[in-house]
Amino acid sequence: MITARPVDLQPIFYPESIAIFGVTDTPDRVGYNILQSVLFGGFTGKVYPIHPRHQQVLGCKVYKSLADVPEPVDMAIICLNQFATIEALESCGRAGVKGVICNAGGYRETGEAGQTLERRLVDTAEKYGLPVIGPNTLGIINNDGNFYSTFYPLRLPPGKVSIISQSGGIGLNVIHMAIDEGLGINKFIGVGNCSNIGFADCLDYLENDDSTSVIGVYIEGTSDAGRFARTAGRVARKKPVVVYKAGRVMDADRFTQTHTGSSAGSFRLYRDILRQHGVFTVSSVSELVAACKALALQPLPEGNRVGILTHTAGPSVVMIDHLKPAGCIITALFDETISRVKRIIGSDDPPVVLKNPLDAAGLGFRGPIYGSLAEAMLQDKNVDLLLAVYCLHKNWELPAVELLAAHKRIQKPLIVNFVGNWLGCRQDQEFLQKAGVPLFTEPEKAAVAASALVHYGTRQKGGVCCDC
Amino acid sequence: MITARPVDLQPIFYPESIAIFGVTDTPDRVGYNILQSVLFGGFTGKVYPIHPRHQQVLGCKVYKSLADVPEPVDMAIICLNQFATIEALESCGRAGVKGVICNAGGYRETGEAGQTLERRLVDTAEKYGLPVIGPNTLGIINNDGNFYSTFYPLRLPPGKVSIISQSGGIGLNVIHMAIDEGLGINKFIGVGNCSNIGFADCLDYLENDDSTSVIGVYIEGTSDAGRFARTAGRVARKKPVVVYKAGRVMDADRFTQTHTGSSAGSFRLYRDILRQHGVFTVSSVSELVAACKALALQPLPEGNRVGILTHTAGPSVVMIDHLKPAGCIITALFDETISRVKRIIGSDDPPVVLKNPLDAAGLGFRGPIYGSLAEAMLQDKNVDLLLAVYCLHKNWELPAVELLAAHKRIQKPLIVNFVGNWLGCRQDQEFLQKAGVPLFTEPEKAAVAASALVHYGTRQKGGVCCDC
Repeated sequence: MITARPVDLQPIFYPESIAIFGVTDTPDRVGYNILQSVLFGGFTGKVYPIHPRHQQVLGCKVYKSLADVPEPVDMAIICLNQFATIEALESCGRAGVKGVICNAGGYRETGEAGQTLERRLVDTAEKYGLPVIGPNTLGIINNDGNFYSTFYPLRLPPGKVSIISQSGGIGLNVIHMAIDEGLGINKFIGVGNCSNIGFADCLDYLENDDSTSVIGVYIEGTSDAGRFARTAGRVARKKPVVVYKAGRVMDADRFTQTHTGSSAGSFRLYRDILRQHGVFTVSSVSELVAACKALALQPLPEGNRVGILTHTAGPSVVMIDHLKPAGCIITALFDETISRVKRIIGSDDPPVVLKNPLDAAGLGFRGPIYGSLAEAMLQDKNVDLLLAVYCLHKNWELPAVELLAAHKRIQKPLIVNFVGNWLGCRQDQEFLQKAGVPLFTEPEKAAVAASALVHYGTRQKGGVCCDC
Repeated sequence: MITARPVDLQPIFYPESIAIFGVTDTPDRVGYNILQSVLFGGFTGKVYPIHPRHQQVLGCKVYKSLADVPEPVDMAIICLNQFATIEALESCGRAGVKGVICNAGGYRETGEAGQTLERRLVDTAEKYGLPVIGPNTLGIINNDGNFYSTFYPLRLPPGKVSIISQSGGIGLNVIHMAIDEGLGINKFIGVGNCSNIGFADCLDYLENDDSTSVIGVYIEGTSDAGRFARTAGRVARKKPVVVYKAGRVMDADRFTQTHTGSSAGSFRLYRDILRQHGVFTVSSVSELVAACKALALQPLPEGNRVGILTHTAGPSVVMIDHLKPAGCIITALFDETISRVKRIIGSDDPPVVLKNPLDAAGLGFRGPIYGSLAEAMLQDKNVDLLLAVYCLHKNWELPAVELLAAHKRIQKPLIVNFVGNWLGCRQDQEFLQKAGVPLFTEPEKAAVAASALVHYGTRQKGGVCCDC
């Protein structure tokens, strides 16, 4: 590990000029794909591909070596094999490059010879005080600067959530699920073997990155678990951090060693320490994305008292299964709210369940009534956050406008659980999320999203603390 | 409960003529929506809407009462309030109707008066030996006979999975997720309050329903948990049953009582008893759908030894987290397979992790290589089932044809985990699933799907038993 902290990762994420080592002209090589990714992503800085034998790739002039590049570059991406990577890193250090990404695997994760090789890589990085992401990494994305340097050419909607992932594959899973969920991504960091720059360094950097408001982490294991947990806890006091820890079982543990060379460690210990540090933890990719989405879009609630409005009960049962263990209270409604509900429905003995969850049954379809009920519940002094359940129906539309109006008037967090399929919900999801209200289509996801908001709401606003 | 068992539910699912009580001409009433649903679904039998004041609704002649209907009907759907429902049920009994669905709520779930009312409903049903689905139900769907009698007009792709759900909302969630997952649904039964026909009756019926090959169950609680578990266990020896038990926490328990009037009971006790009876249990709507999809599409494996082929390690780590606790073994590969892998790649020391999971890294993109590796792993005598992970990439296509060819040659179960977004994976999902290979986009889902196959494979084929 290099000693100066925090490490300046700015040149890696916001370079004005970059060099890419190992750019060939065939699409089954990482170098080609990274150049393609940089171009496809719309990077506006200068790009200097490097390869001893090629003249031009993807319309870009190729330079024989870093020495041939006509100006100093801010950062370099090294897409060479594990041996050549170290030589290239040395040349970057000598040339005053300010940050490097090393993609190749073949280090610690492969055994003893690889460990020795990785030690040389780290020594080289430290000799020049050169921050190195990887090795054995998918790369990074800075969507705030249109800088896509993974070997998967793609573009993402803009947003405020940044992701740190030990695995490129799970990182891609998060990215694609974010696309499906309409969640904008700010930065993506594939930390790979974490041999020079680890989770804590990335958290340090994102803590002070103004364009990041929520940080999602996928971790299998790290040699510096204590620092990771402490840093995550410190950063989480400033902006929400959500951690998905994998590698629970022994076989997975053995396998993580051949993945990024880290031991996954005791799953429960990890989770408990993270929780002690006040970090919100999740158990799947979809929970990670759900929690990050809610935290990115909604204000934090004042407390842990959750209201549920629905016209079908089952989703409430499932949500309560998740909300309660996360420390949420399914609050009682004030008599005033019950009276108001009766007035809205226009009956002193309406055919609805007059408590929380408020099950409006068949009456729940009509937009103005549903919207008024949502507003009544949001206004209840016992309710800190509202979960609104609605079912996709051929004859009705999700009262998105009414829900939004209620949310804007009362200014309390609102999460919509729309029971429907992807195509049927897509338009409402876009509309609501553009206005800051997250829409989910699974009660488990909606509940985790609410739990995440309550977790950080109760921590940051001094309300009732929850168990999660 | 009626005494004759098993109850003949055939007239409810395959009627030639139906009556619908309470058909009005406004789309915010259940009766209107059910008629619409029946018509939209393409029911080819005779439909007799009943209402004392309407002449015609949705192009159908409306009859003043059941007595006015010109012929005996096989079954009736009663969309009247909780009081009028009982009178209508009485008239159905007298007229020799063979099965009834009662949609209205307002019974046991609302308190003492409702309990008395529900007792009257059950007494009426028993007096005539009349099977009654509900009350307090979304209704049923028989996609095998184009009979859609819920109040949500929709159509579903055909398939072999039938769903029994205590909640209409979760039932709809399953249905919409099935649409997203490309999973065909055969029958849907909203059991509601289960006051006359319960889970066990429905399982009995589906056990002998040739068009159903897999049964998915969402249950909150039932007064007859023992019979449910025993029946589920017995049916599961004939065709796979997957159970999602909700209502884990006390608040949820209180709420389930106002939902369908059933106490959710001890979650763990339920789950353990189901497992003792050999039933596969899951923990979310998405797991329920994933398990049912794999079981509907794939043959059962001979044992619990799972192979994983990937070109990115993270998803394997996550999958192993789920596979191991479900009793799967991440098997060692035979030396013969390792040699074959080296030959396929064309190197004696290839840059891949030469064990299970087999991480082909960058080489994993090329279709012919990926397909050959999949075939080599499937052919390994230590592998009972293969999980194949592939990442969506702008320059590559999922080697669906190659995977399918390998699967067809070796005849062992195959599950694809395609790391990608919904739109990006849709076409491959359709192609593969039409040929019987399930495709998932989340490692947790793929792992649960594999676990479900292993669970029933080891039970039904006498292989090694797993813990799940």
